Amino acid sequence: MITSRDLAKVHERITPYIHRTPVLTSHLLNEISGAEIYFKCENFQRMGAFKMRGAANAVLNLPDEIRKKGVVTHSSGNFAQALSLAARSAGVPAYIVMPSTAPQVKKDAVKGYGGQVTECPPTLEEREKAAEKIMAQTGATFIHPSNDLDVIYGQGTAALELLQDHPDLDFVITPVGGGGLIAGTALAVHFASENCKTIGAEPFAVDDAYRSLKSGKIESNDTADSIADGLKTQLGDKNFPIIQQYVSEIIRVEEKEIIAALKLIWERMKIIVEPSSAVAFAAVLREKEKFRGKKVGIIISGGNIDLQKLPF
Amino acid sequence: MITSRDLAKVHERITPYIHRTPVLTSHLLNEISGAEIYFKCENFQRMGAFKMRGAANAVLNLPDEIRKKGVVTHSSGNFAQALSLAARSAGVPAYIVMPSTAPQVKKDAVKGYGGQVTECPPTLEEREKAAEKIMAQTGATFIHPSNDLDVIYGQGTAALELLQDHPDLDFVITPVGGGGLIAGTALAVHFASENCKTIGAEPFAVDDAYRSLKSGKIESNDTADSIADGLKTQLGDKNFPIIQQYVSEIIRVEEKEIIAALKLIWERMKIIVEPSSAVAFAAVLREKEKFRGKKVGIIISGGNIDLQKLPF
Repeated sequence: MITSRDLAKVHERITPYIHRTPVLTSHLLNEISGAEIYFKCENFQRMGAFKMRGAANAVLNLPDEIRKKGVVTHSSGNFAQALSLAARSAGVPAYIVMPSTAPQVKKDAVKGYGGQVTECPPTLEEREKAAEKIMAQTGATFIHPSNDLDVIYGQGTAALELLQDHPDLDFVITPVGGGGLIAGTALAVHFASENCKTIGAEPFAVDDAYRSLKSGKIESNDTADSIADGLKTQLGDKNFPIIQQYVSEIIRVEEKEIIAALKLIWERMKIIVEPSSAVAFAAVLREKEKFRGKKVGIIISGGNIDLQKLPF
Repeated sequence: MITSRDLAKVHERITPYIHRTPVLTSHLLNEISGAEIYFKCENFQRMGAFKMRGAANAVLNLPDEIRKKGVVTHSSGNFAQALSLAARSAGVPAYIVMPSTAPQVKKDAVKGYGGQVTECPPTLEEREKAAEKIMAQTGATFIHPSNDLDVIYGQGTAALELLQDHPDLDFVITPVGGGGLIAGTALAVHFASENCKTIGAEPFAVDDAYRSLKSGKIESNDTADSIADGLKTQLGDKNFPIIQQYVSEIIRVEEKEIIAALKLIWERMKIIVEPSSAVAFAAVLREKEKFRGKKVGIIISGGNIDLQKLPF
């Protein structure tokens, strides 16, 4: 397991490749929630999401000889863009396997960041096969979007910065998808604060992390019918043990609570956040008594959303 | 005419009543425009627009005996909310005359900030009659949304802060509506910088300020068919002389340029701004050669927009 000093080194390593994002507050949302909330705005991060941090660390931490052969992942979401941009920033190729069914706008975004897109049939098996073929052909290193320690440590730097700016937080809340953000956050909170607790927030519709913490093994979702489309994935064997050890609880929220929280953030804070980000704020609104009068950090995970498909 | 020192006093006076809004930059928008742009984010201002500054100054600069009788204005837009909030912050009543045809959501917003709404038939004559009646009954002071020197000076504090943060700007651009923001900005730029120029941006569809500067007298608009609904009003006798003296030019933009600029700001910067704010950025995109390599400040006027009625 890494140390506090290692995490500081991770932060130093990726600093030239990321933005130090601002921490915003809102009198109105504090009034509505009864808590004192500090929003760490990773929607303002490069390529619009915290994923840039983990991708940058994973790319930069490869030995020179290995890194120059490039990196590969399969993803149709933010991580594909993040890895493409991180690789381009480091001057190495990024090979991105995407399902042929992915929206053209996402393929274009990846290409826009310099990623080389390979399309495959839309099954996990085909995605893995395509990635392995690329690895064999190019010598590129596979980077998992969330179940990779370098990725996890990179994601933790958002909470590290948040606690540097506001050392006296009582809680830090993140949404839980594949587990990379929450695991990295929990480590950073553990290193940076004695009393601060890390809490995960998850839609009831995809509450695999909640169930995993209850059962002690990684659970999956039968359905994936949530507006928080970044949170449909399940935990992995690298991040789950960290989550078990350092996350104090997972709060689940209803879809309508996510949409209401999303609308509040958009209308009152005037910032564009993706539905996954609103899940964490929805958790504060759902459990008001727990957070009343407390200092609560929320990692706003990202702001990449199709403006043509707003839920309100 | 006020001095640099007077404007500093205005800023000091309203500081407890306003937010010091952040200045944001975007690598991507710099790349697209070829300029180095500094966005002064008044969409993050209290009640969501720069109007809070002028309203606060107008309320606070009244003598105690007069102020306590309250303030009155007729407006269906941001100024009605700003004056209500400024008056409430100062502990005095705000009487807002609104046309009966104004959307319920706007009436509710004013009431939410503590304003006392009086409805009247939707003509200027009826609005003025209703305001005069309230003044006679209550002794409240009428505050014009843009053609009032205290309001103008208050609006100028946004540019003052912007130039404190970035003293070496070549240009500051604001949208032009009733003229309060551009006049106050031009004064602040004149006081704070030797070489910086103030430029106005206006839709072709409501280019009354452009025509007023050409003709030397205040022109009005025959039609008001612009998406930038905050910019449909005309200049006034208090702000026009300041604009004539200190504004170097007005750049006009097409409706489709406004929408494209709006979309770029939303998608790339992840902030919610009203169409009027996008007019200033559209001007930079339209006249790229003028701004290439220059440091350009843009006053993002506000972020109050109906999410149900997006133009994209």
